[in-house]
Amino acid sequence: MKQDIIQRIESLRKLMTEKHIDAVVIPQTDPHQSEYLADRWQVRRWFSGFTGSAGSLVVTATQAFLWADSRYWLQADNQLEGTGIGVMKEGLPEVPEINDWLCKNLKPGQTVGIDGMVFSSSSVAQMKAALSKHGINLSTDIDPAVLWNDRPSLPLDPVFIHDEKFAGESTASKLSKILDFAKKQGAESVFIADLAEIAWTLNIRSSDVESNPVTMAFLFVSPLNSVLFVETAKLSDDVRNYLTANGVNVAPYNTVESFLNALPDTGKVLVNPVQTAFRLQKAIGEKVLESSSPVALLKGCKNETQIKGVRNAMEKDGVALVHSFMEIEEKLHKGEPLTEIDVAEILTKHRSAQELYFDQSFDTIAGYGPHGAIVHYSATPETNVTIYPDNLLLIDSGANYLDGTTDITRTIALGQPTPQQKRDFTLVMKGHIALAQAVYPAGTRGAQLDVLARIFLWKDGLSYLHGTGHGVGHFLNVHEGPQSIRLNENPTPLMPGMITSDEPGIYRAGQYGIRCENLILTIPAMTTEFGDFYKFEVLTLFPFDLTLFDTTIMSDAEIEWLNAYHDEVRARLTPRLDAEAAAWLEEKTKTLKR
Amino acid sequence: MKQDIIQRIESLRKLMTEKHIDAVVIPQTDPHQSEYLADRWQVRRWFSGFTGSAGSLVVTATQAFLWADSRYWLQADNQLEGTGIGVMKEGLPEVPEINDWLCKNLKPGQTVGIDGMVFSSSSVAQMKAALSKHGINLSTDIDPAVLWNDRPSLPLDPVFIHDEKFAGESTASKLSKILDFAKKQGAESVFIADLAEIAWTLNIRSSDVESNPVTMAFLFVSPLNSVLFVETAKLSDDVRNYLTANGVNVAPYNTVESFLNALPDTGKVLVNPVQTAFRLQKAIGEKVLESSSPVALLKGCKNETQIKGVRNAMEKDGVALVHSFMEIEEKLHKGEPLTEIDVAEILTKHRSAQELYFDQSFDTIAGYGPHGAIVHYSATPETNVTIYPDNLLLIDSGANYLDGTTDITRTIALGQPTPQQKRDFTLVMKGHIALAQAVYPAGTRGAQLDVLARIFLWKDGLSYLHGTGHGVGHFLNVHEGPQSIRLNENPTPLMPGMITSDEPGIYRAGQYGIRCENLILTIPAMTTEFGDFYKFEVLTLFPFDLTLFDTTIMSDAEIEWLNAYHDEVRARLTPRLDAEAAAWLEEKTKTLKR
Repeated sequence: MKQDIIQRIESLRKLMTEKHIDAVVIPQTDPHQSEYLADRWQVRRWFSGFTGSAGSLVVTATQAFLWADSRYWLQADNQLEGTGIGVMKEGLPEVPEINDWLCKNLKPGQTVGIDGMVFSSSSVAQMKAALSKHGINLSTDIDPAVLWNDRPSLPLDPVFIHDEKFAGESTASKLSKILDFAKKQGAESVFIADLAEIAWTLNIRSSDVESNPVTMAFLFVSPLNSVLFVETAKLSDDVRNYLTANGVNVAPYNTVESFLNALPDTGKVLVNPVQTAFRLQKAIGEKVLESSSPVALLKGCKNETQIKGVRNAMEKDGVALVHSFMEIEEKLHKGEPLTEIDVAEILTKHRSAQELYFDQSFDTIAGYGPHGAIVHYSATPETNVTIYPDNLLLIDSGANYLDGTTDITRTIALGQPTPQQKRDFTLVMKGHIALAQAVYPAGTRGAQLDVLARIFLWKDGLSYLHGTGHGVGHFLNVHEGPQSIRLNENPTPLMPGMITSDEPGIYRAGQYGIRCENLILTIPAMTTEFGDFYKFEVLTLFPFDLTLFDTTIMSDAEIEWLNAYHDEVRARLTPRLDAEAAAWLEEKTKTLKR
Repeated sequence: MKQDIIQRIESLRKLMTEKHIDAVVIPQTDPHQSEYLADRWQVRRWFSGFTGSAGSLVVTATQAFLWADSRYWLQADNQLEGTGIGVMKEGLPEVPEINDWLCKNLKPGQTVGIDGMVFSSSSVAQMKAALSKHGINLSTDIDPAVLWNDRPSLPLDPVFIHDEKFAGESTASKLSKILDFAKKQGAESVFIADLAEIAWTLNIRSSDVESNPVTMAFLFVSPLNSVLFVETAKLSDDVRNYLTANGVNVAPYNTVESFLNALPDTGKVLVNPVQTAFRLQKAIGEKVLESSSPVALLKGCKNETQIKGVRNAMEKDGVALVHSFMEIEEKLHKGEPLTEIDVAEILTKHRSAQELYFDQSFDTIAGYGPHGAIVHYSATPETNVTIYPDNLLLIDSGANYLDGTTDITRTIALGQPTPQQKRDFTLVMKGHIALAQAVYPAGTRGAQLDVLARIFLWKDGLSYLHGTGHGVGHFLNVHEGPQSIRLNENPTPLMPGMITSDEPGIYRAGQYGIRCENLILTIPAMTTEFGDFYKFEVLTLFPFDLTLFDTTIMSDAEIEWLNAYHDEVRARLTPRLDAEAAAWLEEKTKTLKR
């Protein structure tokens, strides 16, 4: 493998020489700026051998580096050893950003090459501006993937219709809202590259990307001639007819660029430059009207049908979790072998037994002891460990059901927890509860509420660096925008119908990790002379481990919240459980007392 | 007066016709983008008769409007009635921004005229971009103030040196830091227009602007030839010699533009486009290097000498407040007449008796009953009311001492407070205390902490729309940047040495207002494996009204904080008080019990 990597980098350098390119940047994304990639776009992985889900590769005639963020430092060191590719540890003060590194390591007149199909229009603009200050050129026409001989073709998983009884809104209605938005901005049509936005708009789904029920496609929306660019072999007659009935024609995925090039000069085309490939935006040319996405906010605010569906999905997910945690406990109790990978399989087994189950919504994170402290840990055969009745186990998992998407993290003590573990867990839960109980005026942004989940940890000199909350799709991607609850500013306010996670944590390197995550829905709270106020409804239904609470540092209100939540969990799940499982849940949700 | 206004607008329209200008915008600012203005720059006030501290006037051939924010809606209605000038109530959904209004009310080819000396470079760029989209021109050479016959001249108050024993850092050291900053950015010199930044840099003060101890000036800082542009009659020989010794030459205020025009082409000039007049930045021309201010952060982080000075100033201010509140109570008790203006005078009398007193740091806000609900109320002879032993009295006041600046708000009950008043007050205090007790990692921005002061009010459906905290200068402006604690995003983190206010409030229109304000200093808290953490030291020393607390909604920790704070107030102030005042303070700081 290492030898393969060395040869691939060598052949890339030959290509660079032929094309008069002095440095190539290969990002971890696709023509849709996706977070999760179909195999065909694992170009950076193919060239480097590094399997992490983020990080760009930069290659010059004499140097090669992979930029890895902190969660991947160790993995990158291991996977890149002996390949001649160095690791740039993003976040360390001495590690420059890629553009800065290029400016320092290239000379004026030299040229950086990228594939303009996998860089967004806005990122190319930034790159051009940075490089041009140092007299360095940017070529957007080099596609390193041409060297990948056995490159996977486009995925051909069938497309299917996501029934309106789940989606709650017709495709016709959605298309009309999108065109209204465009009209108000002064555009006639809209070009959409984001896969989740296309899936939502057309009420279609597929399995092209692992854990993301989307189809690889582009969508051009116009009053007269909307076109879906997709591998046509993926479409049944039913789906074709459905699209036609909604005024959407179909064309092969690879014809999108020529279509955009040939667009008549009838009106402006609304384009989100952050999501649109540079080359495709260039093909639209002068007709482009840049704007934020017309779909993101519509998709982010769930309708009543979706919300009802999610509530039902949460009950099913809760039932699956009861059975899963019972099985895990039993195996540990009996001394049967149990590994992190086993835990992931147990969860999938019980979830897939639930009605309308489709797939997991992301790779299960089952982190035992020190593995729990690795924020994006997912067990592989190489890292997998056996779990013993001791220390903590962090399980972050979720599923896509046709009626909703789930994402839950629970941390449980497998033996007698230490005082530090209990204090850490309780501080995390105090933040979790404070956020869940927040009431806030219309217009409030997630970045404003984020501190509610962190302040108790901060007072102990503890912190976590990931976001507190991400948006969650409806039978779609488990990470979506436009809202978030993070340290960083995000101008989108929290609006009724938005589903966001509430997941503070604490990670003690080499010891254990703790994270407590529910999904929460923004709903109206009250209207007073001071305006409209919103609050959260907790959607997720599963108990927190009662043995991990240190009640001496909890307020009465916090204990009341937990007991009321556990009462709700018991009331909602018990009717779906057999007697044994109901008894188990009864025990796990008994009243917490000082 | 109304007739004067009508004539002034008429003469402005004549001038517009002569100059082929179709609309004029007159802002409320000066060539330094000041918040408080010397009389010479009260141009908007002269043309409109409106005396509010914010709001622009827009005049076309047939229309005239003043844009007023919510605190001035009522006042603008009253003062503009009968002048032909309408009020645009900013914040109402139907009220457009000025640029949008101009785009709608002018035709392509028409021209908007402004004075490029009182618009910043960045605001002109924005205006140009907005207008040009609609084919409207912008002329930056029209100065409506030429019509103001008896326009006040530049203030001639003497400049004096702010002794290094108070400032804690020499002018030479500050100049050297500023030039270092510029060098790192790639500039050779720096142009500074902000009056507080100039005063801080040169350790000079004056009285050119009410309550702001600054002098009208521009400062050009360069390694060889620094120049202060100031009315030379304001400078004594001592001050001149002091400047010369620091390598700073002096030139008349009005020569700044020609100086900048004639700058040799030796290197870039660092300019903050947000603070620099369009015309002056234009004069520097191609040599401009735009940047954030090199002074703001240096000035914002107070040194040890300044902090020691502020602590001393707070003790003096506390003593003055003890005497003031005693006198107010006594007058009410004896039934002697007492008005809002009397309260302001009592405060000034006792403060001015303190060592190193210079001036008030802003106009005292003494708002009795319903007047307390008007956020920026300051009593005038027309609005002044007599205070009776009933309802609430809100007093927001402060002073500039040579060793520090104070700003404090207390709300007191003059009779038996109602349950609603006690609940409102206690909710405000819960937020005040939560912010004062915050611990936060290095890099935390004020906008992240702001919610701590609001969440208790929000849960009751209450809110306040002003910021929770503004930066405070050292013997300088009571409002300064770069940090703030507000709803709005501000990228500057809170750093050790920064002084910020903590002033949540609640305003019940027609009933009363409540605000509780201390100044708080960012100091190191601890360093752990998770990084550096900061916290606040409370600087202000004066009790909160014990009769207004509803202890049934307070936590033990909140009551403990209040009692510890009152213990500190008593311990620090008592040695400076006579027996009677000490007894009064003893009573006001007695332990709060459930």
